[in-house]
Amino acid sequence: MNHEYFMRLAIEKCFEGIRYGQSPFGACIVKSGKVISCVHNTVWKSTDITAHAEVHAIRAACKRLKTVDLSGCVIYSTCEPCPMCFSAIHWAKISTIYYGSNISDAQSLGFGELTISNKRMKSLAGSSVKVVGNFLRGEALELFNTWMMQEKRRLY
Amino acid sequence: MNHEYFMRLAIEKCFEGIRYGQSPFGACIVKSGKVISCVHNTVWKSTDITAHAEVHAIRAACKRLKTVDLSGCVIYSTCEPCPMCFSAIHWAKISTIYYGSNISDAQSLGFGELTISNKRMKSLAGSSVKVVGNFLRGEALELFNTWMMQEKRRLY
Repeated sequence: MNHEYFMRLAIEKCFEGIRYGQSPFGACIVKSGKVISCVHNTVWKSTDITAHAEVHAIRAACKRLKTVDLSGCVIYSTCEPCPMCFSAIHWAKISTIYYGSNISDAQSLGFGELTISNKRMKSLAGSSVKVVGNFLRGEALELFNTWMMQEKRRLY
Repeated sequence: MNHEYFMRLAIEKCFEGIRYGQSPFGACIVKSGKVISCVHNTVWKSTDITAHAEVHAIRAACKRLKTVDLSGCVIYSTCEPCPMCFSAIHWAKISTIYYGSNISDAQSLGFGELTISNKRMKSLAGSSVKVVGNFLRGEALELFNTWMMQEKRRLY
């Protein structure tokens, strides 16, 4: 099991979300080679604008590990975390972010993104989280292509 | 009922949270003069690092109004929303933020803040949310003084 493996779990979960009418974002949190949570965005399903994949994955991981401190965890996100999710990752003390597509890709679909990159957020706030971007970007972009073909897709 | 009234509801709720061992932050969401949600931070109570007062208030408001679009709502926050909460407010399309104390005040208590002000977030991201800071700042800072006197206070 390696980084590609975990990112593909997030991608697979995201495809599942798209099939259920959810937004095209998935995230997987891993600690010491073990999957702690793997979820898709549930903004529509749960009527919760904060239920982005990363926030949802962090909540689930906190519940599962019975702690608000996710030090040593890695998050695999199909898209670059938005500033809300980046900041949630910071609060959770997650050590590393791997992401596929970029915030600007999500923006081009029509999502109302705050266009501040993870690199910018990290440098502005002096955060120590490691960020690896454009990871399996091609496979991550396939999620957006698939979502664009859904008749009942909705933006927020 | 005016802005002071709603901010004081958030402050009162925050005092309640402090009494229950929670972190010293409260938020109240109002639409057309009606309180939609008024909560305190529940990071410890719910073992959820994302359960800041503002995020918690937004979730509750989405549930109550059965929508992820909180356009026309105002949020009263006892402290300046951190970048996670500011971004959640953006996603929720809340129109105006009133806040009391500043992120740097919370940082001085020992919270691991990402030190990007709302003003900076707004200008970087081109967000249209209106921000009114230092609103009833003195009363908001009393919350921090009270929290500092709690023997069992915990930081994250």
